Amino acid sequence: MAANSFGSRFVVTTFGESHGPALGVVIDGCPAGIPFDHDLLLEQIKRRRPGQHGAATNAVSSRKEEDLPRILSGIFENKTLGTPIALIIENQDARSEDYDQIRTHPRQGHADDLWKSKFGHSDHRGGGRASGRETAARVMAGAIAQMFLKSAAPQLLVKSYVTQLGHQSFTSPTHWMEQQNEVTQILLNAKKQGESFGAIAELWVEQCPANLGQPVFRKLKSDLAAACMSLGGVTGFEFGDGFLAATQKGTEFHKPQSTQQYGGLRGGLSTGEKITFRVAFKPTSSILDIAKKGRHDPCIALRALPVLEAMTHLTLADHILMATTDQYKN
Amino acid sequence: MAANSFGSRFVVTTFGESHGPALGVVIDGCPAGIPFDHDLLLEQIKRRRPGQHGAATNAVSSRKEEDLPRILSGIFENKTLGTPIALIIENQDARSEDYDQIRTHPRQGHADDLWKSKFGHSDHRGGGRASGRETAARVMAGAIAQMFLKSAAPQLLVKSYVTQLGHQSFTSPTHWMEQQNEVTQILLNAKKQGESFGAIAELWVEQCPANLGQPVFRKLKSDLAAACMSLGGVTGFEFGDGFLAATQKGTEFHKPQSTQQYGGLRGGLSTGEKITFRVAFKPTSSILDIAKKGRHDPCIALRALPVLEAMTHLTLADHILMATTDQYKN
Amino acid sequence: MAANSFGSRFVVTTFGESHGPALGVVIDGCPAGIPFDHDLLLEQIKRRRPGQHGAATNAVSSRKEEDLPRILSGIFENKTLGTPIALIIENQDARSEDYDQIRTHPRQGHADDLWKSKFGHSDHRGGGRASGRETAARVMAGAIAQMFLKSAAPQLLVKSYVTQLGHQSFTSPTHWMEQQNEVTQILLNAKKQGESFGAIAELWVEQCPANLGQPVFRKLKSDLAAACMSLGGVTGFEFGDGFLAATQKGTEFHKPQSTQQYGGLRGGLSTGEKITFRVAFKPTSSILDIAKKGRHDPCIALRALPVLEAMTHLTLADHILMATTDQYKN
Amino acid sequence: MAANSFGSRFVVTTFGESHGPALGVVIDGCPAGIPFDHDLLLEQIKRRRPGQHGAATNAVSSRKEEDLPRILSGIFENKTLGTPIALIIENQDARSEDYDQIRTHPRQGHADDLWKSKFGHSDHRGGGRASGRETAARVMAGAIAQMFLKSAAPQLLVKSYVTQLGHQSFTSPTHWMEQQNEVTQILLNAKKQGESFGAIAELWVEQCPANLGQPVFRKLKSDLAAACMSLGGVTGFEFGDGFLAATQKGTEFHKPQSTQQYGGLRGGLSTGEKITFRVAFKPTSSILDIAKKGRHDPCIALRALPVLEAMTHLTLADHILMATTDQYKN
Repeated sequence: MAANSFGSRFVVTTFGESHGPALGVVIDGCPAGIPFDHDLLLEQIKRRRPGQHGAATNAVSSRKEEDLPRILSGIFENKTLGTPIALIIENQDARSEDYDQIRTHPRQGHADDLWKSKFGHSDHRGGGRASGRETAARVMAGAIAQMFLKSAAPQLLVKSYVTQLGHQSFTSPTHWMEQQNEVTQILLNAKKQGESFGAIAELWVEQCPANLGQPVFRKLKSDLAAACMSLGGVTGFEFGDGFLAATQKGTEFHKPQSTQQYGGLRGGLSTGEKITFRVAFKPTSSILDIAKKGRHDPCIALRALPVLEAMTHLTLADHILMATTDQYKN
Repeated sequence: MAANSFGSRFVVTTFGESHGPALGVVIDGCPAGIPFDHDLLLEQIKRRRPGQHGAATNAVSSRKEEDLPRILSGIFENKTLGTPIALIIENQDARSEDYDQIRTHPRQGHADDLWKSKFGHSDHRGGGRASGRETAARVMAGAIAQMFLKSAAPQLLVKSYVTQLGHQSFTSPTHWMEQQNEVTQILLNAKKQGESFGAIAELWVEQCPANLGQPVFRKLKSDLAAACMSLGGVTGFEFGDGFLAATQKGTEFHKPQSTQQYGGLRGGLSTGEKITFRVAFKPTSSILDIAKKGRHDPCIALRALPVLEAMTHLTLADHILMATTDQYKN
Repeated sequence: MAANSFGSRFVVTTFGESHGPALGVVIDGCPAGIPFDHDLLLEQIKRRRPGQHGAATNAVSSRKEEDLPRILSGIFENKTLGTPIALIIENQDARSEDYDQIRTHPRQGHADDLWKSKFGHSDHRGGGRASGRETAARVMAGAIAQMFLKSAAPQLLVKSYVTQLGHQSFTSPTHWMEQQNEVTQILLNAKKQGESFGAIAELWVEQCPANLGQPVFRKLKSDLAAACMSLGGVTGFEFGDGFLAATQKGTEFHKPQSTQQYGGLRGGLSTGEKITFRVAFKPTSSILDIAKKGRHDPCIALRALPVLEAMTHLTLADHILMATTDQYKN
Repeated sequence: MAANSFGSRFVVTTFGESHGPALGVVIDGCPAGIPFDHDLLLEQIKRRRPGQHGAATNAVSSRKEEDLPRILSGIFENKTLGTPIALIIENQDARSEDYDQIRTHPRQGHADDLWKSKFGHSDHRGGGRASGRETAARVMAGAIAQMFLKSAAPQLLVKSYVTQLGHQSFTSPTHWMEQQNEVTQILLNAKKQGESFGAIAELWVEQCPANLGQPVFRKLKSDLAAACMSLGGVTGFEFGDGFLAATQKGTEFHKPQSTQQYGGLRGGLSTGEKITFRVAFKPTSSILDIAKKGRHDPCIALRALPVLEAMTHLTLADHILMATTDQYKN
């Protein structure tokens, strides 16, 4: 599989540098006849933009990203054609002069220098393709996956919240929502002080069909981990009781009255129960460097939630298509 | 990519049911001319067998697995041919009658029932392909990858130890080695009592070439996570400071005097520094069920060490081949 | 896709050198629950052996190939498991000493020298992996594909005959069958004289489901061509009126009363009508060289018929699985 | 591999309906640092447009296709970045109303009806994705491949001409060029009369590096055949003496003084000699139907030449990258 592609049946290929002309995605393998939901696409794109997630990151990032997606192919009369779906976003606010310093002063914690040594030639402006901006293409693709899932698994729902933000814990999605004003204040202060925070995002999938996942290298847990770990800043993945389970005895972990600790997966396959997993983010790097006067978030996990959901939708769409041929039905 | 294949250039495909005639692997993409090291292959296979890892698991598992690998193709006059390398292990001690009960009584925590409902038809004996025995094929493939790495990155070294075993921590590889007698006692007692333990395996890669990893979906961290999460019993993956980083502020995490917290990766690419990652295992499931009189380990992490190392070798071999075309050199 | 794999959903990977320990194939992607037909497997293997196809090639080749396939995995209680199906044939009659001359005297028309320069290190004995013997693995895989097709498209039938043998034409399958005694005589004489023949094999598929083939790079005609051209000795492929159509006007070619000239394909998709295609073979090379005292056929097209049918079965199985997700049906 | 992707290392994915907003291509796997040649891109795009190839098809097709390519990513400061290269062409002259009749009256010889039955939902306008217009994306990709080849194999040259046009033969590229005025007249007359012609295109590759091609399913002949057969209207492929060889004896075909009959390939690998192959086209279909008042060519082979060359460049680029890991060189 090419390095910029994800999935083996619902295959997405993303392209675009942060400060190039446009970024985009091609989705190959989405079945024909799936209703296209333009509002859903716009809504997901909007969630990824700076200043979303309740009021939490309001005014936190200053890059103005209109991010209006344009559909180039694969949709006709509001339904998918079964042909590749191409979507792009033109880059409008690409003030590349801000980044001239990076060319000679690679940013600490970033990969500017590695990228340069790896490829010999690189686009130093705003991280080029390593930029968080690349994730806009994933969100567009994820929205198409979500449309497919509405047909294939109508009850399926992917949700997420931030359960840890630096030193602070949020014990439930409700707790997280209730604390949005405080979170906004923390982030604004952090921005002023050049501080940043690590975070843990928790995701769950409701009403996921059973039996998704393929032995042995395409277990659902394996693909979900790869999907989440492919995001910048992510440093860990666990499902169910994860690392906690590793410190337990069997008699503590396996409880006759509960299966929650398994996270909705057994043998790498979905059981039909709620799937739960958690994704660790390190504190943002750029806060320490020359770009800090810039327009970067003190905590990327917040904007990453719709991206993680998108990657989850993509993974599930891919696995639903894979599972159609587990047993042959004429 | 097919579900039983791993890698995109150093491509391995495994096959075989736990109680079928044989299990094996085909490796497609290993360059020609790599010296074949028969002793290394046998040594790695031996490490995966029950009763290895110092004395720790001695007598812990009772299945007698001779596991003599047979080379069917791809090696000639002790060097690789550039053609597919096929290796098999015949299953000799496959007492399938022990498993007749499983057909009607799927084991808790196992995926016997899911497997059956997914495929309609399944091999119930000893977990079929979901068995830990499948990992013998990975170890054989990993040994070939290791031989390739000896040519491509002669200084590279992959190592591992158990840093957590249920409630007990081991603070360093040395500590772990010193405690082997105690560990043996713990495991033997556990076996008697039908107890099991979760565990955390820690791995590190010394002298890994820089610039391995591909943007954006084939970051090294993403592929390592997928590789490790594809093992049975694994519930979490983190690299560098992982989940700990998620509870920190940027000023705590990013330290001018240290890069250890990054785990040898930046932007998903190897930096040339030591790569470190940790893999969480839940407590063994089978301890609770009808198979407990059987021959299963109270802690699979111990036997999993060579398998995790094998998956790491495979991932690195794949990425070294991928990196050869980052820049074209005639 | 790895170089020794064919197909993207019904994926086969072959391995094995002509004079190595064994050759074999792994099939990944065959759905579970397909009845396994052992007799069909043996019958197809037998057809590929020297001295088959009526009496035509009787006694033509002297290598004794028992070719008893062994099933290593993926079949249980006479049905497919949905797991990889591995099949091998042990090489019993591998008189490698016959080939010692080849090491220093590469054979004309063969690729021994290219192989050596490509890989640096090569197995010179009997063509190594370039040997026609490799096709035994394809025939095994094709038999499994055929079993799958019996479930998925029960009326589908793949047939073939030789329509041209050097200077001589056979105008229909019946004509070909009637002339078998004469053909035998021609081949035996050729063998004595060190002569060989080019040939054209004609294949047809009856009752092929409509709508197989994928736009734009996986058209059925494209995949069939690749499948057939991947055989040693093949120099051309055409379907329907093929090269004849290229010498016609539209008013000659397109006939309201007939669609036969289209060969059962339109826009690269199967129409449901009979699919017809033809495969050109150059005269055998080895007849001219040191191996001629050996055991090679004066016309490989005859033994290639079951191999071409196998490749056709594999291609169709792959496309039937691909077509299942053209439109999503829950 | 996804159905709209071609290649396994130099991977191109095309998208776009004939009358949709745009068509385009993403190229993933082109190494970094390759000089970008904008003129070459424009020149190849121009060759594919109606009214090119000398004067031959002047005024033959009436669709005005400006076809100005836009680079969206992967190129920076006039060199490739090693990231995906995305190129699009906006569809400007998409008079979809002309095609309303097709919705209810599928065109004979076209696949409009099959497409509709395959996907349930289809874009009937101008063939949708089955349109010849899709090939503009291939030509853009081919131009990038050609730029890569200028670095990797600077002497390599791909050329083509039409050697057969309906009843008429052209015995050499020179003969073909000399007859352009006559050809123009033939085509203009044909257009008036609603006539069309089959054709044979002949291609050759000069100074192709030796040892390209991979055993066993990725032989160069196999990939070239798949590449050419993936074009609309193509009905046959042969290399070297092709179907002629099939009617010969070994003593006629194998000549000690010549290797031309092998077409520059042995065992599916390039030998370093001139590679020659021929592609058969059936007479254009649309000439017979309601679109004939339209804007279609009486012989698609003429406009197909740059597309066939593009597919050849893509195939060779892919194989040059594959061959880099035949033997590992650190």
